Formats: sequence, structure tokens, C-alpha cells
Amino acid sequence: MLISEQALRTFTKNIFLSMGCSDEHAVLAADVLLISDLRGIDSHGVARLIGYVRLWEKKRINTNPNITILHETPSTATVDGDAGLGLVVAPFAMRLAIQKAEQYGSGWVSVRNSNHFGIAGYHTLMAVEKDMIGFAMTNASPLVAPTFANECLLGTNPMCYAFPAGKYPPIVIDMATSAAANGKLEIAQRLGKQVPEGWIQDAKGNFTTNPHALKSGGSLLPLGSDYEHGSHKGFGLSATVDILSAVLSGANYGPWVPPFVSFLEPPSDPVGLGIGHFLGAMRVDGFRPVEEFKSHLDNWIARFKSASTIDPDQKVIIPGEPELEAQYDRKKNGIPLIDAVVNDLNGLADKFGMGRL
Amino acid sequence: MLISEQALRTFTKNIFLSMGCSDEHAVLAADVLLISDLRGIDSHGVARLIGYVRLWEKKRINTNPNITILHETPSTATVDGDAGLGLVVAPFAMRLAIQKAEQYGSGWVSVRNSNHFGIAGYHTLMAVEKDMIGFAMTNASPLVAPTFANECLLGTNPMCYAFPAGKYPPIVIDMATSAAANGKLEIAQRLGKQVPEGWIQDAKGNFTTNPHALKSGGSLLPLGSDYEHGSHKGFGLSATVDILSAVLSGANYGPWVPPFVSFLEPPSDPVGLGIGHFLGAMRVDGFRPVEEFKSHLDNWIARFKSASTIDPDQKVIIPGEPELEAQYDRKKNGIPLIDAVVNDLNGLADKFGMGRL
Repeated sequence: MLISEQALRTFTKNIFLSMGCSDEHAVLAADVLLISDLRGIDSHGVARLIGYVRLWEKKRINTNPNITILHETPSTATVDGDAGLGLVVAPFAMRLAIQKAEQYGSGWVSVRNSNHFGIAGYHTLMAVEKDMIGFAMTNASPLVAPTFANECLLGTNPMCYAFPAGKYPPIVIDMATSAAANGKLEIAQRLGKQVPEGWIQDAKGNFTTNPHALKSGGSLLPLGSDYEHGSHKGFGLSATVDILSAVLSGANYGPWVPPFVSFLEPPSDPVGLGIGHFLGAMRVDGFRPVEEFKSHLDNWIARFKSASTIDPDQKVIIPGEPELEAQYDRKKNGIPLIDAVVNDLNGLADKFGMGRL
Repeated sequence: MLISEQALRTFTKNIFLSMGCSDEHAVLAADVLLISDLRGIDSHGVARLIGYVRLWEKKRINTNPNITILHETPSTATVDGDAGLGLVVAPFAMRLAIQKAEQYGSGWVSVRNSNHFGIAGYHTLMAVEKDMIGFAMTNASPLVAPTFANECLLGTNPMCYAFPAGKYPPIVIDMATSAAANGKLEIAQRLGKQVPEGWIQDAKGNFTTNPHALKSGGSLLPLGSDYEHGSHKGFGLSATVDILSAVLSGANYGPWVPPFVSFLEPPSDPVGLGIGHFLGAMRVDGFRPVEEFKSHLDNWIARFKSASTIDPDQKVIIPGEPELEAQYDRKKNGIPLIDAVVNDLNGLADKFGMGRL
């Protein structure tokens, strides 16, 4: 099914309104999901809407949160999301980081008591629009084993860095710190396909190509896949995300992070509140005139785009460029939804007495 | 050869004095190299001293730099290293970041016109001593090909994050963003050994186990090794380091970064000055009381140390712990130097009319 941006946006906003969100929060939460679908990151868009609804039904998401600043200095702050949707808590925190950057050059906000925040790129692009460099990270449900371990202690913990360019689109590096994102595993599961060696291990710690291995004690592997190829670095990056997002804010970390799926209960011995994020913004002109920076970043991009490549038909991909191309295409031609997602969304429409897609 | 910390420290300081460094700079530069040797990172310690001397002989290192702040806001700054040793320029920048953090919560300094800064961990530990979180990155000579390319456009561009713990040693994540650091390749070259598949590619872009492949058009690979295993993420991290360190400061970036080895000339068409670094410090108590943070980080560390592991004899390694163990051992028992390094150092002693080791 191909659906227009506007129709899907209105539908999504109405679901959030039905959950009790304010109009402002419903518009914002829908925007975060829509930008994900427009940018081609289907795993983090409206496909997740049913997940948010189920968590709300279990009273694990508060749709009328009182988001507060717990503590701050001129360039840092800690925010409590009051168990709200990460889709509204993270933009609140990023706006605060941007305000601090406007006044003091940079702003850094650690967030506790939140939920899944959608794509990290959404939040960093808020900074890029103000000619700032954006940072966004979040911890997530434990699915990844540290190097040498055979239990899941970390999430796929994404980190994102975004930089404003001049004539080129912004560079947006938005990456899970695991070898493969969970979304890629879900696609293989759905299609009944094997996955490459190096993405997951079984309960005994052997590489397996079975995408269902996590259900029988397996785990995703950190970026690098094994120690010889630097999986301790992927583990270190994931640890950095966990510490900045949760140990610093007072959220749950490591194996205590509450699962996104509603059929798994959160640990009974929490070490903090909800999940954690870390957001940052730095003014480019806190370092160098904006036009100088952008002209050199354009030069950087042009040089990498013209790099000699192994296959002349496969050029170097500048991070963020494929997503922007998808956005142009989908804004014009509509957003493709697979049947399973359409069925989920129509189920939600029935539940809330709304018109189907 | 096993040499005491004090003897090697004095020797190293005297070499820097002979190069014309002030006493203060000689003590500091020697400290950065010694800490590297003490922590077991032999590739970045006194083994590099001959490299610094050769660059100074070529007038590419200025041993009497006038290090200046080009631009600043309350929490950001750009520093010009005046072609000085990175070993003194980076600590200058980190001190500035720490001062800003003391006043405004965080400090972020991008550095141009510098040289190799030793181990990133040294600089982040300056922040940790003040109960701050430390960040350090640097770009470096182009040895790494971006995903899909077969030319070297990036350095092994390390990123380092360090966090103060309570009863445990600080967590120090100090990692090249390539699958393997160049030092590991040099060891294989010296021993005449092959390297694992996934570290380097030949000129045509095929994996090779020949550690000499870089001399015939090959390149190191980003963390992840190939696209299927996330090398575009390693590329993205390396790009982040390059942009924060050099595009932001006005240093050279990408293939324009001047090589560390003195027998290769810098590009004739520079896009900036010298190499670039990026240093940051954030006060822990800008977010949460220090004791609370440390007690939760201790809990994090304890949980990961007690993780179930594939091989019960191989526990999860907490980043920074092996280096601290090496430091205890080498402070007590001396620092081992291989013959090639001893010969290089004694050659320098002869050159400067100093006593041999």
C-alpha cells in the first residue's frame, strides 16, 4: 500500500490524540514517526505505533507527562521525562540543549524516565537547522552481548552525529553500535532468510545465521562482530551510550533497561527510572564562522564523493544522503507500507473507533 | 631491555630539551609518552620519539610554539597549536576545556595546526581527575579507505571517552575507528606474520592477509571491515572525528592530513593548518551528584564483570582496566623496550651528545 504523507500524518496524529496526548504532543510525536518513514527508516516509523499503544495500555507510557528539568548549569542539564513518549521527551531535551548553545556555545542534556525516542537523526536535525552540530544517543532493551559474554547486557544503543553543510545536504551519521540493527534481524525473520555470520551468536557464543537465535539464548554482537575484528570497540561505544544516557541521568542501564515490547515485563529491581537519552548541540560559530565551516564541509563531501571506488558503479555514500533522497521521493510519491503494518494500523483504528487507512 | 620509569622519563625529557623545548614542555611531552609506555600502549610511547625528532629536523614541528586561542564562547573554543608537538598542544586545549567546564558545566575545544598527540587516553584522564567526563579525538595520516573505496582518505582517527568511577578504576574507552590500529599492523610486519582477513584490503579492494599491502595501494578498513558487517559505521565514526577535529578548527582533513612519517611530504595543496584534535570535558555534577554517579557506575562495572561468559576463564574486560594493571606492574617492575626501540633511542642520544640508555 502506498499512502500520502499527509494522510498518514493525520492518521498517526489521531492515534496519539486517542491515547490522550495533547494536540501539541500528538503533532510532534506523529512528526517524529513520519520523518522516519519519509527517510526510508521503516523500522522506526509508524510500524512502531502499535508498540507505543501497547505500552500505554500497560501504563508504561504516560501520555500527559510533566517533563521537568531536575538540575542544570549554563551548558548542561538533566531532564525527567515523567514516563512520557520519547518522541516528545527527546525534542524537549534537544530544545533545551539548543537554547543553552545559543547562550553559552553548547548544550548537553541527559534524560531519565523516558521511552523509545524514534530515530536519533530527527533530534540532531533540530540542531542542524540552527547551524549547530547535533548529538543524540539512547539506550535500549538489552539484546547485545559484550565481547566474550553470552548474555544480553546492552541495547543496540544508537549514536548519531549531524553536521550542517552548504550546498550539500547535512551529514547525518545515525548508527546502531551493534554489527546489525535489530530492524535488519526482524526483516530476515519475516522473510525466513538466514543472516550473515557476525551479526548474532547462539547461547554458547558461536556465530549463527539463524535470525531466531535470540529466542533461545542468543544475542546480537557489537560492531566489529568478534574480538579479532574489534568487537570490544563496538562494546565500548555501546557502553558510552549507556553511561551518558542512563548512569549520568538516573535512568536504567545495562540489563535493567525496560524492554520495548509490552509482553516482557521490566526488571523487578530497577536501578533508575525508564530509559535514558543524551542530547547535545554545539554552535558551529562557537568555533569558526559558519560559512567557512560549510564551505570546507562541502569540500570534504565533494572529495569523498569523487573517491576512487572498487566498483566504479558504487560510489562512496555520504551518511544522510540516501535518507534525504528517500525523503524527496516519498514526499512526492507516497510512503509504502507493508501489509503487516497496514493491518496493525487498521486494528488500532478499530480500537479507537477511527476511520481505517 | 627493562628500564625504570624514572630513567626513561629523564632520558625522554632530555631529548625534548635537546630539541629546544622549554623545561615545562619537555616535562609534559615526556609525561604523555611515559604514561603510554606505562599503560602498555607501546606503539604510542617512546617508540615514537624518533618520529617526532625527524619531523622537527624537517621543520614540521615547532618546539617553541605560541599556542593561542583563536575564538571562544563560554563553553567552546578554537585553539591554534602553532605547529607545536601535539603532546603539549592537546593538554593546553584540555586544560582550557576543563576551565570552561568548571565555570559553565562543559568545555569543548577544537584544535588546528598541531601534530600527533600521543594516546587520547592521557588527555581524557586529565578531565577524570577533576570528576569530569573526558572526550578526546584526533585525525591522522590517511591510511583507511571509506566503505566501497580503494584509496586512503581517513586516518585511524581515534575517539576516546573516559568516566570517573568510585571503587573501580575509571572507564577509558580509547579506540581507533579502523578495524585494527596501525600499531597492530606494524607488529605483524616486524614479525613477518599474516594478519586476519578484515583488517586490510589490497589495491583492488579484496581482503588480504599481507601486512605489507598498504605499500602497494592497499588500505586499512574501517571498524566493521565490510559493508555487510557495518564498515559504513566505522567510516561514519572516522568522519565524525575528522570533521570535529579539522573541518571545525581549520586543520587539514581527509587526504590532506600531513603524514606522521617524515619521509613523506605533506600535500602541496593544504586545506588547513597541520592536523586537528577535538577535546571536551563535562562536569559530572553538571548532571547528577558525583557520588551518585560513581556509585551507579560501580554497579554497572560490577554487573559487567560478573557477566556470564562463553569461556568461564575469559571474563568481560572493562575498558581501561588492563591498561591500569599494566601501569601498576610497569611502575613497579620497569618498562620493557624491544631492541629496535633501544637502538633508535641510543641513536638519538648520540645525535644530541647525551648518555645512552
